[in-house]
Amino acid sequence: MKKIALLLVGLLCASSLVWADVYQTQRQEWLKKAEAATPQLHETIIRPVSLVKSVADPNAYQDWRMENIPGLDAFYKTPLKRGDSYILDFGKHITGYYTFTLSTLERAQDAPVRIKFTFAEMPVELNTPFDPYPGGLGRAWLQDEIITLPYIDKPVTIERRLACRYVKIEVLGDSPGFQFAMSDTYFTALSSAPEVQIELAETTPAIIRDINRVSIETLRECMQTVYEDGPKRDQRLWIGDLYLESIANAQSFKQFDLTKRCLYLLAALAAEDGQLHANVFEKPTPHPQYGTICQDYSLLYNVALLEYLKSTGDKETALDLWPVVVNQIKLAANYIDETHLYNPQKKTPLWLFFDWRAGLNTYAPMQGLFVFALNKSYELAQLLGKEDEAKEWPALAKQIKKAARKQLYDQKKGYFVSGPDKQVSYMSQIWMILGSVISPAEGQKALKQVMAMPDAVYPGTPYAYHYLVEAMIQCEMKAEARQLLIDYWGGMVKKGADTFWEAYDPKDDFLSPYNFAPINSYCHAWSCTPIYFIQRYPEIFQK
Amino acid sequence: MKKIALLLVGLLCASSLVWADVYQTQRQEWLKKAEAATPQLHETIIRPVSLVKSVADPNAYQDWRMENIPGLDAFYKTPLKRGDSYILDFGKHITGYYTFTLSTLERAQDAPVRIKFTFAEMPVELNTPFDPYPGGLGRAWLQDEIITLPYIDKPVTIERRLACRYVKIEVLGDSPGFQFAMSDTYFTALSSAPEVQIELAETTPAIIRDINRVSIETLRECMQTVYEDGPKRDQRLWIGDLYLESIANAQSFKQFDLTKRCLYLLAALAAEDGQLHANVFEKPTPHPQYGTICQDYSLLYNVALLEYLKSTGDKETALDLWPVVVNQIKLAANYIDETHLYNPQKKTPLWLFFDWRAGLNTYAPMQGLFVFALNKSYELAQLLGKEDEAKEWPALAKQIKKAARKQLYDQKKGYFVSGPDKQVSYMSQIWMILGSVISPAEGQKALKQVMAMPDAVYPGTPYAYHYLVEAMIQCEMKAEARQLLIDYWGGMVKKGADTFWEAYDPKDDFLSPYNFAPINSYCHAWSCTPIYFIQRYPEIFQK
Repeated sequence: MKKIALLLVGLLCASSLVWADVYQTQRQEWLKKAEAATPQLHETIIRPVSLVKSVADPNAYQDWRMENIPGLDAFYKTPLKRGDSYILDFGKHITGYYTFTLSTLERAQDAPVRIKFTFAEMPVELNTPFDPYPGGLGRAWLQDEIITLPYIDKPVTIERRLACRYVKIEVLGDSPGFQFAMSDTYFTALSSAPEVQIELAETTPAIIRDINRVSIETLRECMQTVYEDGPKRDQRLWIGDLYLESIANAQSFKQFDLTKRCLYLLAALAAEDGQLHANVFEKPTPHPQYGTICQDYSLLYNVALLEYLKSTGDKETALDLWPVVVNQIKLAANYIDETHLYNPQKKTPLWLFFDWRAGLNTYAPMQGLFVFALNKSYELAQLLGKEDEAKEWPALAKQIKKAARKQLYDQKKGYFVSGPDKQVSYMSQIWMILGSVISPAEGQKALKQVMAMPDAVYPGTPYAYHYLVEAMIQCEMKAEARQLLIDYWGGMVKKGADTFWEAYDPKDDFLSPYNFAPINSYCHAWSCTPIYFIQRYPEIFQK
Repeated sequence: MKKIALLLVGLLCASSLVWADVYQTQRQEWLKKAEAATPQLHETIIRPVSLVKSVADPNAYQDWRMENIPGLDAFYKTPLKRGDSYILDFGKHITGYYTFTLSTLERAQDAPVRIKFTFAEMPVELNTPFDPYPGGLGRAWLQDEIITLPYIDKPVTIERRLACRYVKIEVLGDSPGFQFAMSDTYFTALSSAPEVQIELAETTPAIIRDINRVSIETLRECMQTVYEDGPKRDQRLWIGDLYLESIANAQSFKQFDLTKRCLYLLAALAAEDGQLHANVFEKPTPHPQYGTICQDYSLLYNVALLEYLKSTGDKETALDLWPVVVNQIKLAANYIDETHLYNPQKKTPLWLFFDWRAGLNTYAPMQGLFVFALNKSYELAQLLGKEDEAKEWPALAKQIKKAARKQLYDQKKGYFVSGPDKQVSYMSQIWMILGSVISPAEGQKALKQVMAMPDAVYPGTPYAYHYLVEAMIQCEMKAEARQLLIDYWGGMVKKGADTFWEAYDPKDDFLSPYNFAPINSYCHAWSCTPIYFIQRYPEIFQK
């Protein structure tokens, strides 16, 4: 007991000093380095491929599907009158700016024109009334815009950046005095991902090829001037998404400047005690979402930096950001109590995310993730020759592992439980496996048992499923990992996904972390990792 | 019979030749002269003076009044949340651009903000649902704008030029993640009218002083880079409004360049046969409302040019535009039939406006107006030394007058009737008086009789009432003219008008030419003429 207490005190003092130092000197330098690493955005002009109509269909995902209808060429010359409504299909998910031109057909414009545009990633966004809005996030994320134009006959670009595949046009205001049509309409699509050819073994089955394709599209759309979590919403850099995007990028686009930029941005915008903010904004000037600290995300930053170093060999950046790594370990260690458990009540409780799944207890998952982070951070220390600054970490990891096995692991049943109600969840097993708290054989047993329990808390997002696949691979459950990828991400593909979704529960089409499916992001970074698995483990997925 | 036929043929040939000539050579020159005469727009920053609320009140005009409420200073610091609604009173009618700044109060913006603004000249616009829209003009004239802002903390100016006194703010989208307030809001008000001090005799009663003030405000607001008919709607140059605005301007702001610009614009944008279009647009490039020809307006152009010359002595412009005058006479003469009546069926029927009053028969009014225009146009010819080109006009006027007295005047009853149903209207008497078809004594009798008839068609707009006041003055009904000004325009003042309205019927608060009172213009050029009467006839109105 005394040993661990001293160990923690030692950690605290050492890293406090480090941070106090860098905080004064490095922040502005880091912002400059983030700025310098900003990748170029590639622009592509994309025009509609068809008119479509919404068709109610109980067999379709979320009860709606789109059906092509003829007439796109005629549409460009068709007079638009109040009450008219059209849906344009751009054929793919697009992130960018929308431009349209209304042109006078007959006589002269004698009144402003008023058009409502609704931009939709998914049919559900065009077939669910937005108001009264029941959702838990800002209503204005929904992409409906009403535009009044006193003067037409010139291209108009909507100022807000949008993300969608479909554009619904509703004419709200015309005039009996003249006729006009939408003579042109297009998106200027944006991404910082370069063009890339991903090779797959000939043996790769069609469904995995499809998953691979949708995965790449998802990542491409989220790669802007940061790794965004979702181009529709929230359009910002979250640590959790960054980690997964960056490892997927390393297996595909290899746009490492973007990773570097994001690592620097997060470091520069840390809180005063050096704790990383869970997410940051680029505009109008870089700033964090004040007060949003997520301890599991903070620790994953360290892993993202390790993976960046391993992919690029860029020791300079890794050494520059090393104090941030040290500090995240220190700050998390504050929450380790005398029984060596991560105890959220020990200090001001921080948000522990792990998954959007109502009721998930995150104590055991956090115990496992902290060990995972300690192991990975120590690996980084070794690569950088910084073992002296990290010398306490292996011992700390060992103690936390031991406490987990002793207090959270039901030896007889062979799985972990979490929290006062001893909740059984996938996430607890997953993170104990990834933290090597249990052996692959034990992990396999734990996973198989829990996955067979109908009441076990199962993942609600591709973010959580990513770690399940990773845990399976670590437990030598290769066939199961492959099948899960096919069932879960392939399930989205079969349901028509152009890009992978923020939330997906095969049993609940309308699952929403925000109480309103249309506000879900349907192109979400943390869902893009099939490309990582398929490329990193070809022996599992490319056959 | 033969004589008139020859006379008309003569008119036709002479003026056709003139027009064919100018059409080829002058049009571009006239556009350049219009451009050169564009007045500067003066900008004034105007901020709200109070928060107000709408109060239902059956005694108020259109059943609503505004009541001041405290809290404007606090408003600028009050967090805005979804569902919040405020009405700002800017204290006066404003034409211009609206700017607002939303500022972060706490944490950082983590979602777009969505605000609905409704800009209202009158309380009715804030208290009548706009949709489903029942009106007969373009829905988009209504001034409601929904703005989505991905980034706040900077001033935002709505692109559309607006006209209003009140701004209603409804918060449609916020975020639980941060707080914001509207820290600033203002209009950049525009007018090409210079500052001017209008002197009134000390004897002028309060009500006429008020009418004078509201009249000046109305004219000021409509004076932009053309004489607009209404700054809310239609925001363009109509000949009928130009005529009244220019004579009111001559008695007040004396911004004669604006008159010159408008006269040139209309001339340059005439139809191929030289017929003036009833209205023209400045943007994106000057062009007419194709196909909108209004014969009474075409002829009033001639009178406007005469008055411009008399006010300014600018013979150069009047001579330059003289062919236009000749042509309007020629084109109207085409409609004089063998009985010397204006017969709309003689050629393609043209729109005869005169007033917004459902069912008004315009045949007799047109007969009178044509004589009025012939007389005034001949006066112009004399001032320009162009009697030779106009030598047929006095005889033509005489014949038309004679025909009117013979065929439209009920000698026994002492008033004029119009059309196949022998409609009795104010407008018929008014225009026969203004055309001097009858003597002042006869005119007085006609007016008094008709005004005593409950079923006589009475005016629906200040435009028509203007000519009634003018006709009364011409008939030596000075006390009646004064009382009418006090009753009619003063009625609007008493009902709270900041500026005079497009349509006003003391018996019908909701009279609308477009079937929807909120789309009426409540600052309308043709209603601005009290300033003209008060200054031109001080002996009647300034005592």
